[in-house]
Amino acid sequence: MNYSMIRYILCRVLEFEALFMSLPCLVGIVYREKSAVSFGAVMLVCFAVSLIGRRFKPKNKVFYAKEGFVTVSLSWIVLSLVSALPFYLSGEITSYTDALFETVSGLTTTGATILTDVEVLSRSAQFWRCFTHWIGGMGVLVLILAVLPLSGSYNMHLLRAESPGPRVGKLVPRVKTTAMILYGIYMGITLTGTISLMLAGLSVYDAITLSFSAVGTGGFGLLNSSVGSYSVAVQLVLTVLMFICGINFQVFYLLLIKKPKEAFASEELRYYFGIVFLSAVLITLNTRSLFDNAFDGFHHALLQVTSVITTTGFTSRDYNMWPEFSKTILFILSMLGACAGSTSGGFKISRFIITVRSIKNEVSYVIHPRSFKKIHMDGHVVESSVTKSVLVYAMIYIFIFLGSFLVLSLNNFDFTTNITAVAATFNNVGAGFGMVGPSGNYSAFSVLSKFVLMFDMLVGRLELLPILILLAPGTWKK
Amino acid sequence: MNYSMIRYILCRVLEFEALFMSLPCLVGIVYREKSAVSFGAVMLVCFAVSLIGRRFKPKNKVFYAKEGFVTVSLSWIVLSLVSALPFYLSGEITSYTDALFETVSGLTTTGATILTDVEVLSRSAQFWRCFTHWIGGMGVLVLILAVLPLSGSYNMHLLRAESPGPRVGKLVPRVKTTAMILYGIYMGITLTGTISLMLAGLSVYDAITLSFSAVGTGGFGLLNSSVGSYSVAVQLVLTVLMFICGINFQVFYLLLIKKPKEAFASEELRYYFGIVFLSAVLITLNTRSLFDNAFDGFHHALLQVTSVITTTGFTSRDYNMWPEFSKTILFILSMLGACAGSTSGGFKISRFIITVRSIKNEVSYVIHPRSFKKIHMDGHVVESSVTKSVLVYAMIYIFIFLGSFLVLSLNNFDFTTNITAVAATFNNVGAGFGMVGPSGNYSAFSVLSKFVLMFDMLVGRLELLPILILLAPGTWKK
Repeated sequence: MNYSMIRYILCRVLEFEALFMSLPCLVGIVYREKSAVSFGAVMLVCFAVSLIGRRFKPKNKVFYAKEGFVTVSLSWIVLSLVSALPFYLSGEITSYTDALFETVSGLTTTGATILTDVEVLSRSAQFWRCFTHWIGGMGVLVLILAVLPLSGSYNMHLLRAESPGPRVGKLVPRVKTTAMILYGIYMGITLTGTISLMLAGLSVYDAITLSFSAVGTGGFGLLNSSVGSYSVAVQLVLTVLMFICGINFQVFYLLLIKKPKEAFASEELRYYFGIVFLSAVLITLNTRSLFDNAFDGFHHALLQVTSVITTTGFTSRDYNMWPEFSKTILFILSMLGACAGSTSGGFKISRFIITVRSIKNEVSYVIHPRSFKKIHMDGHVVESSVTKSVLVYAMIYIFIFLGSFLVLSLNNFDFTTNITAVAATFNNVGAGFGMVGPSGNYSAFSVLSKFVLMFDMLVGRLELLPILILLAPGTWKK
Repeated sequence: MNYSMIRYILCRVLEFEALFMSLPCLVGIVYREKSAVSFGAVMLVCFAVSLIGRRFKPKNKVFYAKEGFVTVSLSWIVLSLVSALPFYLSGEITSYTDALFETVSGLTTTGATILTDVEVLSRSAQFWRCFTHWIGGMGVLVLILAVLPLSGSYNMHLLRAESPGPRVGKLVPRVKTTAMILYGIYMGITLTGTISLMLAGLSVYDAITLSFSAVGTGGFGLLNSSVGSYSVAVQLVLTVLMFICGINFQVFYLLLIKKPKEAFASEELRYYFGIVFLSAVLITLNTRSLFDNAFDGFHHALLQVTSVITTTGFTSRDYNMWPEFSKTILFILSMLGACAGSTSGGFKISRFIITVRSIKNEVSYVIHPRSFKKIHMDGHVVESSVTKSVLVYAMIYIFIFLGSFLVLSLNNFDFTTNITAVAATFNNVGAGFGMVGPSGNYSAFSVLSKFVLMFDMLVGRLELLPILILLAPGTWKK
C-alpha cells in the first residue's frame, strides 16, 4: 500500500475542502451570520493542514487499483468528517453524529435529514447543505483530476473508483481532459438551471441552492415542504434539471461534439425515457381521484417519478397518501436508479439491462445447449467479466441491504419504515415511506442505526467496491 | 419438442394422482363423509384418462433438458388443476380459484390458505390438504422414476428439473435407484414422525396428517391455531421433523451407508445448524419479556425459526406481536431457506455460500488482479458455470419478487402485507406479516393476485427454470 501517495492526495482533498468552504463563509458574511466564523475557522485549519501535508511529496508513485479505491473511500470519509464540523461548531446541529449524518447525506446526494425544521437554519448552513450535494454529485476526486496538473497511472484508478456505472470509460484519451469535460458540462447545467429558476421567479440565493440540489440529484431543500410550495414553473424547471442529470454525461459530450446519432443510440437512455414516461402515466391514472385535473396529476406524478428514479428525493406532495400501487412503483424506481455516468444513485439502468440479458442467455442456453450467445449493449459485446461483476454487485447490494434492515429493526419501528429507510439511504434517494416519508425525518433512529445508514449512503454513492476494499483485511496485508 | 413423450409421462402422472386420491377417498369412507364421493369420482376419471392415454406408446424417445423442464412444469400444473377438483365438487371450497389456490399451496408445500376456518373441513379434505404437502415435498416425478420401470436419457433430466438445489447429483449411478433411495428415506422419516407424534399423544389420524405436513415442510394444519394448542411434546417432535427435512437427503444416505465423516463434512449442513441455533438464541433474548421462562421462550423461538427456515410455516405463537428485530430475522430466514436437496423452499444455504464466496473472489480480484482463485465447496471446485447460474438465479428471483409485489399492490393493502405475501408464497413458507400473518389468510386478495401468488408458489417450488422455460417463446420454436 502506497501510504505516502494516499496521504498526499488526501491533503489535496483538504485543500479543495478549504476552497469549497469559502463559499458558505462568504454567504455568511453577506447575510451577517455568526456561522460565518465556523466556516472560516474550519476553512483555515483545512488549508493549514493541507499546506503542511503537501510539503512532503511522495517518491514512490506506484499506484494500483486497490490504492485508487482506498484513496477514494478515505477522501469521502475525511471530507464528511470535516464538512460536518461547521454545523456542529456553530451550534446549528447540537450532536456531532447528527451533523455527520446530515453531511454524509449531503455529499452522497442522498438528502435524508435528521432535522425536524430546516427553515430555522442560517442561510450559510442551508447553502452548505445544498452545496455538499453539488460537490458529491460529480465527485471531488474527479474535480481534482480536472484541475490539478497531476499525471500518472493513478488518474484512471481514481476516476474509475469514484464514477458510477458498470463500465467507466474515458471520453477522450486523457483522464485530465475527461474530468475537465465532465465538470464543464456539470457547471454548464448548473448555471443554466440557476438562470432558469431565476426566470421562473426565485431569488438568486434560492435559485443557486436549489440548482445545486437538483443538479447533484441530492434532494435537500430550503423549506420543510420540500418543493411543494413553489410555483408550477419552478417545479417544472426542477423536474427537467433532475431528469437531465439522470442521463449519462457521455450523451451530452457526444451532443457537444455534434454526434447526435451516437448520443441517442444509447439503449440505456431509451429505457430511461420509457421507464420515466410509463411510470408517470401509470401513477397519473392511479392517483386521478386526488387531483383536480389531468395536467396537475401528470405534473406531480412526473416530478415524483423523476425525483425518485434520479434518486434526488424532492417531493411536491405527500405520496405517503397515494394508493399503494403508486407507492410501490416509486419504491421500485428508487432502487433502479437512472443511468450510469450520471449523478444519480441506485442500481442503474445499464446494470438492469445487462442483468435481464444474462437471464435471457441462461434460459436460452438450457433450451439450446449448443448455442452460446454473447450479451450485447449499444451494439458492443459486454465481456463476461463485466456481466459477472454486475451480478456480484447485485448480490453485495442485497446482502448489505438485508444486513442494514436487520440492524435497523432493533429500533422496533415498523417494517415499512425500516425497509424504506434502508432503500432511501442506500440508493441515495433520502425519502421513503412511514416515518421517513415526505413529512418525516431520520431523527428518531438510534446512534447505531444512524451510523449504519451513513455507511449505506457512502457505500451506495461509491457503488460498493471502494468501501468494501477499504474494509477487506486482504487490502492491508503485506 | 417431443410431444408424445410428454403426453405419455403426463398420463402416468394422472395414474399416480388416481392412486394418491384413493387415500382421502378411503378416509372419507371410514368417517362416512359425503366428500368421499368427490374423491372417488375424480380418482376414476384420472384412472380412465390415464389408461386411454397410455395405450399409445411414444416411438420417438429423444428427450432433452428442455423437454424435462417442460414435462415437470406441465405435470405440476395438471396435478394442481386435478387435485383442486374434489374441494370444489364437494362444495367445501365454493370457488374453483380458491380451491386451486389451496391445492397449489399444498403441492408446493407452501401452506398459504384462503380458508378463514380450517376446522369446518371434512376429515377427508383435511387429509388431502396435508397429503398434497407430502406429494409435493419430494416430488411426483421422483416417485414415478422410483417406481416405474422406465429407462432412458430423460430420467436424469426429470430428476434434475424437479429436485431443488444449485447442483443436483445422483446418489448412485442409476437414476431409478437414486429416486428409490430418496423416497425410501422420505417414507422412513414420515413413519418415524407419525409414530413419535402418536407417542406424544396424538390420535392416528392427527399424527399421520401432521406428519405429512411437517415432513413435506408444508405447513397446513388441522386447527385454526396452527400448532399452537398442541402439547410441548408434540411441538418438539414437529420441530425435530421440520429440522430433519431441511437437511439435504444425501446426508441421510451417507449415514445409511455408514459414511458419517462424509455426511457431516457438508458445509451447508454446518451453516444450517449454526444459523438455526444463532437465530433461535437471538429471538429468545429479544422476546424474553413475552415468555414466563427461558425454556418456554427458546422452545417457541426454535420452533418458529425451524418452521420458517425450512419454509414450513407452522406457528405456535402469533409472532406478529413479537419485536421487530425477531420478525426481521424470521423474514430474512424465510427467504434464505434450508439446504439444497431437502424438501424446503427458499434460496437455499448452498446458493448463499456460493454467492458469498463469489463476492469474496470479486473483491480479492480487485486487490490482487494477478491471482485468480476458484470457488470451493465441500472440498470440491465449484465450476464457474454453476456460480453464474446461482447469480442469475438470484436475479430472476428478485425480478419475479418485485414484479409480483407490484401486481399485489393493486389491492391497495399495506406495504408489509404485500411484500410478505410475496415472500411467503414465493419461498413456499405460507405465513407472512400483516394480513397474511399467523392469524390471517389470503382470502381477501383479488383473483389476479391469487393467480400471481399461485405462479410464485409454483415457480418457487420448481426453482424458477422449469416454469420460465415453459413460458419462453424459444422453447416452442421449431
